[in-house]
Amino acid sequence: MPNTPPESSKPTKKHRVATTGSYSITVRLHTGTDPAVIGQLATTVSEAGGIVTALDIAESRHDRLVIDLTCSASDGEHAEEIVEAMRGLGGVTVYKVSDRTFLLHLGGKISVESKVPLKTRDDLSMAYTPGVGRVSLALAAHPEDVSRLTIKGNTVAVVTDGSAVLGLGNLGPGAALPVMEGKAALFKRFANIDAWPICLATQDVDEIVRTVELISPGFGGINLEDIAAPRCFEIEARLRERLDIPVFHDDQHGTAIVVLAALTNALRCLEKSLEGARIVVAGAGAAGTAIVTLLLEAGAKDVVVWDKEGILNKEDAELSTAKRGLAERTNPRGMTGDLHDALRGADVFIGVSAGGVLDPEWIDDMADGNVVFALANPDPEVDIAEAGRRAAIVASGRSDYPNQINNVLAFPGVFRGLLDARASEVTTAMLLRAADAIASVVTDEELNANYIIPSVFDPDVAPTVAQAIAGE
Amino acid sequence: MPNTPPESSKPTKKHRVATTGSYSITVRLHTGTDPAVIGQLATTVSEAGGIVTALDIAESRHDRLVIDLTCSASDGEHAEEIVEAMRGLGGVTVYKVSDRTFLLHLGGKISVESKVPLKTRDDLSMAYTPGVGRVSLALAAHPEDVSRLTIKGNTVAVVTDGSAVLGLGNLGPGAALPVMEGKAALFKRFANIDAWPICLATQDVDEIVRTVELISPGFGGINLEDIAAPRCFEIEARLRERLDIPVFHDDQHGTAIVVLAALTNALRCLEKSLEGARIVVAGAGAAGTAIVTLLLEAGAKDVVVWDKEGILNKEDAELSTAKRGLAERTNPRGMTGDLHDALRGADVFIGVSAGGVLDPEWIDDMADGNVVFALANPDPEVDIAEAGRRAAIVASGRSDYPNQINNVLAFPGVFRGLLDARASEVTTAMLLRAADAIASVVTDEELNANYIIPSVFDPDVAPTVAQAIAGE
Repeated sequence: MPNTPPESSKPTKKHRVATTGSYSITVRLHTGTDPAVIGQLATTVSEAGGIVTALDIAESRHDRLVIDLTCSASDGEHAEEIVEAMRGLGGVTVYKVSDRTFLLHLGGKISVESKVPLKTRDDLSMAYTPGVGRVSLALAAHPEDVSRLTIKGNTVAVVTDGSAVLGLGNLGPGAALPVMEGKAALFKRFANIDAWPICLATQDVDEIVRTVELISPGFGGINLEDIAAPRCFEIEARLRERLDIPVFHDDQHGTAIVVLAALTNALRCLEKSLEGARIVVAGAGAAGTAIVTLLLEAGAKDVVVWDKEGILNKEDAELSTAKRGLAERTNPRGMTGDLHDALRGADVFIGVSAGGVLDPEWIDDMADGNVVFALANPDPEVDIAEAGRRAAIVASGRSDYPNQINNVLAFPGVFRGLLDARASEVTTAMLLRAADAIASVVTDEELNANYIIPSVFDPDVAPTVAQAIAGE
Repeated sequence: MPNTPPESSKPTKKHRVATTGSYSITVRLHTGTDPAVIGQLATTVSEAGGIVTALDIAESRHDRLVIDLTCSASDGEHAEEIVEAMRGLGGVTVYKVSDRTFLLHLGGKISVESKVPLKTRDDLSMAYTPGVGRVSLALAAHPEDVSRLTIKGNTVAVVTDGSAVLGLGNLGPGAALPVMEGKAALFKRFANIDAWPICLATQDVDEIVRTVELISPGFGGINLEDIAAPRCFEIEARLRERLDIPVFHDDQHGTAIVVLAALTNALRCLEKSLEGARIVVAGAGAAGTAIVTLLLEAGAKDVVVWDKEGILNKEDAELSTAKRGLAERTNPRGMTGDLHDALRGADVFIGVSAGGVLDPEWIDDMADGNVVFALANPDPEVDIAEAGRRAAIVASGRSDYPNQINNVLAFPGVFRGLLDARASEVTTAMLLRAADAIASVVTDEELNANYIIPSVFDPDVAPTVAQAIAGE
């Protein structure tokens, strides 16, 4: 089963994106017993643009075969086309179509397990009453031991109000839960952290702040997730002031860390400096704001921000408070205009905005040795393959192209480092060190235009980030 | 290693209770190489009243042995006496003493695990972005599927404000965390439920209610734990009104279920009826109030409640609102006086009050065929052995005597049934069925004065309770 499906060209749909496992179906078919049917099925799926990843004979009778065929499709419409093509085969009956992503989500993706044996009365009397009473009394007398003698020292709350779920909008807390579970699973997979989803039934800033404050005694850190801008800025700032455990809004700072790491290596590859680079950031939401802030802290001098109002300029009296704050810190040449204006002569485009806002031809108007990061989710600012033919270095959020900019490179190691150091806050210096750590995992020998950022599965990343966070 | 240590008589301390695993130490000793030393050590521990449960030679050199000796003691003072006795042996150096209960708590007792594979990019793209986005969109359109496609369907929040931790008092949320972790571990062990501790940094009723309401979207049920009376009554009532998931205060209803189950079987054993029994309940806190309420619902007619004010009587103008409510529903013969007065001629004593309030001699003034449940934690209302010599049937919260009344017989099955049935509330009929279910696990053949309640490890209990809750 290939991890990264090839960029197959599909005949049936014009702008079809490459197939990924995220849209994978299992089809149960009843067929005749002619062995040739298997080859016909595989060919049919392939001709319809699907990729067969598994084929099992579930049952073999004297008069029929029951076959489970699993294949990847690019989206729901494409999956239907593939199934339709199989229906068209003589002697084949489609019995049931299952969506593997939904099957995977049945019953949720994380569980709670006991780390202690509970087989005998002795076990019970140590883990629960009466033994646990002595531990509670000790902690009441010595609160500084709570992190050591409870889960607090390894636990992160993944908190959302469901107002900005992925790039999909305000779906609410229930619909956000699968994302928070996925995040918790990644925390465990990449940094052995016990994270638990907290999905809030409010989108009021005061209530969110107070609720997180009240549940904080049981957690060693707070990961804010998928909370819409500008609300997220105030929530984070107020929580950082009130709590004695670190608070980290991953959509902001996780993204900023990985973007800075990728840009560091892109410029290293092109032998340009961050200080000298002209950088355009499209999107002034949570991610864009944090990226700009971290770029400036890292030494960038010429950053221009573009959003739906056009190029952010401090002379614009109609900007919101948050965007005015950004405008005041950026656009040193006082530019006005649209994204195309901003891009002329620019070295770097960083998109955290919306699908398709970047016309590929504008890339040709950028400086030589240009960099395009198209990170909008689920559809990037520009077709990645098209951008790759025009820019010197291209990165995206997608796993099926080189240079995937994925927060999972940052947040597990960041929290590992914070928890290990028993840190009470996240500092800008930590974020800069984390970005540098991720960039440093790519050696000079490995570095090239198609490899500016380590793989999400590179086992060196999280420990390197954790050490950098702890300042080791 | 015995699960239930014998009731050994200890020579070194007057009122020593039987040793339990909850106070178990591991002592690292350096000794000479004479093999006789091992026998001497074991004898010394035994003579000091300790029970050796493990002895390992950790290291054997030409000039010395390093021995890890694990033994049970009745409390900290006793453990010190045992260590002191070992120090008195010639040629033995005590190197280190470790408390096994504290060792067990290092790093906490529960973990979060991923239920889905996260090995390949395909795995990531189904469990997290972009695949999870389709699940979130589906849940936004069909909120009724949240329980099925997320952890919500199998998840319980164990919520405390730390105001009444075990019988130890107002220790606060951090010190309560080990207890909540233990509860979560028991939920998994006995009913395969994923429970997560929520320790609140407030003891204000409004704030507790609102916080639980706001975090409720991610949970399938709320287990309130160790919240002081009378605050717990209002919190539970308001949450039940506001939430669409079941709310259960275990200290109240879990205890009431198990007490009713045990009393049902005690009376079955003695061939008495609940309706005809004169019952005295000592303690009008959370547990006492719930026990009284459930006993009355089950058909009891003559219940008298005693607390520090004396026998609760509705004529007493100085009672608090909560106790007045109890007084109005109980004490049909209008008794006044102290606990001794209440007990004269009574069939049943149920103590959920404080250690030592019941003078053993008063048991002789109860009716023939009398029942004593002494459930105060950690010290029961009366010495259990002494009560056993005077009452027909005795039960307690202790694991080292027959008839252990332990909430773990109720709450796992209760929530298993609630979650399986996707119940939105807990009803009194459910509590009565649960009590009946626990009682029914003890067959007529098994039933006797020393076996009125099943073992906490009886695998039939939780499924039987779950079925009863679901009304099957």
